[in-house]
Amino acid sequence: MGTVLGIDIGGTSIKAGLFTESGTLVSTKKIPTGKIVNEDAFAAVIGGLEELLCSNGASPFDVVAAGLDVPGPVDDNGRVGMMPNAELDVEGLKAAMAEAFPNMKLAFANDVNAAAVGEMWKGAARDVSSFALIALGTGVGAGVVVSGKLVSGAFGAGGEFGHITVNREEASACGCGRHGCLEQYASASGVVRTYRAECLERGIDAVRLQGPTDSLTVFDAYRAGDEAAQAAISLMCDSLGFALAQVSAVIDPPLYLVGGGMGEGFDLFADELRTAFHAYCLPTCAGARILPAELGNEAAMYGGAFLAMEALGVYGV
Amino acid sequence: MGTVLGIDIGGTSIKAGLFTESGTLVSTKKIPTGKIVNEDAFAAVIGGLEELLCSNGASPFDVVAAGLDVPGPVDDNGRVGMMPNAELDVEGLKAAMAEAFPNMKLAFANDVNAAAVGEMWKGAARDVSSFALIALGTGVGAGVVVSGKLVSGAFGAGGEFGHITVNREEASACGCGRHGCLEQYASASGVVRTYRAECLERGIDAVRLQGPTDSLTVFDAYRAGDEAAQAAISLMCDSLGFALAQVSAVIDPPLYLVGGGMGEGFDLFADELRTAFHAYCLPTCAGARILPAELGNEAAMYGGAFLAMEALGVYGV
Repeated sequence: MGTVLGIDIGGTSIKAGLFTESGTLVSTKKIPTGKIVNEDAFAAVIGGLEELLCSNGASPFDVVAAGLDVPGPVDDNGRVGMMPNAELDVEGLKAAMAEAFPNMKLAFANDVNAAAVGEMWKGAARDVSSFALIALGTGVGAGVVVSGKLVSGAFGAGGEFGHITVNREEASACGCGRHGCLEQYASASGVVRTYRAECLERGIDAVRLQGPTDSLTVFDAYRAGDEAAQAAISLMCDSLGFALAQVSAVIDPPLYLVGGGMGEGFDLFADELRTAFHAYCLPTCAGARILPAELGNEAAMYGGAFLAMEALGVYGV
Repeated sequence: MGTVLGIDIGGTSIKAGLFTESGTLVSTKKIPTGKIVNEDAFAAVIGGLEELLCSNGASPFDVVAAGLDVPGPVDDNGRVGMMPNAELDVEGLKAAMAEAFPNMKLAFANDVNAAAVGEMWKGAARDVSSFALIALGTGVGAGVVVSGKLVSGAFGAGGEFGHITVNREEASACGCGRHGCLEQYASASGVVRTYRAECLERGIDAVRLQGPTDSLTVFDAYRAGDEAAQAAISLMCDSLGFALAQVSAVIDPPLYLVGGGMGEGFDLFADELRTAFHAYCLPTCAGARILPAELGNEAAMYGGAFLAMEALGVYGV
């Protein structure tokens, strides 16, 4: 029986899902990892995947396809681009997997793009063929699906909503070297940065944060009535609503999904985000829905499996 | 023998192309029109199309499909939206055509979207599956193609690049009611407006223009060394380069085509446009090519025919 793997590579672990060839999830496994850059690390990943197979009565020869989600750009042809903080030797892992699973077709995707595909297959975008998933986390990523197909882009920059320019007057530089990117205001670190600046400006003490990306504590402060936190969330919503209005003038999707770590606070900021989007979008696009993603941190694993099946010709064109 | 019509409805005339069912252009005809809003006007259009058929040995019964390009929004489902300056009764014309050509399938598209499809089929985008065509004319329109499929959008706003916000500080309102849209700087009227403002600011006389959209005379002035004209073209290029950089962060196409009436001046502004795009885009997207469109004012006619054949199932998915 053919077996398909969806493999999402995160910072400290891999989330792997074992699927039947017809797309039923059989079992999942979390495989702890460090940097995946040498033979020992590749062997540990393969070992974890083999355990997942074995404990479900499958052998390495049963793996007909795997989708590998990586935290870096992957283009329309499945080529993996440069990863700035390289904790992963893609070519090395690919070779190790090809050896361990000799009957496997391997597909690559950017992790946020894969999450979008997962939401299309099993999540909140099941009923539409075009949409975008925005992942609000340490950074701001997105995945764009048009007519049921992932838009990875000619250079792997499809869905790089985090680098839509929302403030041409911004003095501080974004991680990308440009100025005024959405990510500077709507990522976890952006929200924390804005919050601290707003506290300073108001001469009030910031609440105690667990580091520079602890936006969820800023959300808690917002709930408790903290004005600086409200200002930070407002800037986040205004910036994201503005950026989505630009996206609508390009692909005009019927649906935006909001996920990522900060997506957990969706109820807190949904109204303000929708109001900002409506203020900035072309009137004709105002019917686009903005909803929370459904699959949480399993979305990319599902998407990886779907893309693996697509590579097999099971789904898609 | 099945015959296919590509019909592009312009302001004062219709450009119609007669194609074989396999996509070979047999003949074209320009049909003068006024407002197409009553039975007499419908009859004149039908009469012109029948002449085109007759002079090529075809009968009205041979028409198996027609693509109708309209100057207004058409959504992903082929529904025609509101046209603000309604010179065209779509439902009336549709009924008249259905009666005249009883074996016809009818497809609708926005005219700029159809032009993009034409460039994909027979023009400058033949070798790519994803690209955008930007039409610089009285307004700024665009057509987006992803993986060989036109992206009309859920509300018909796919490719509304003219309404990407490039200047959040703009005091003047765009025709859409919002502020700082690309169209305010990169349309023919935008270029003329900027030119006149630059002349005023410099205290110099503007060259004589043939009306408020005569950007080609501003191009001539640029060639003659007119500083105000250079400033207007520079603002056009800066605004368009900035807007395309935002588009690349959404769909990251390998190719942009520039067409429309102002596209005739492409050689004049191409270098400055590319420089602006490179200054604003994510470094990874800098390889996107910016080239002139090839089919001029026949692009939409070709695109209409292609979409008609797609509706027949001859092309596409």
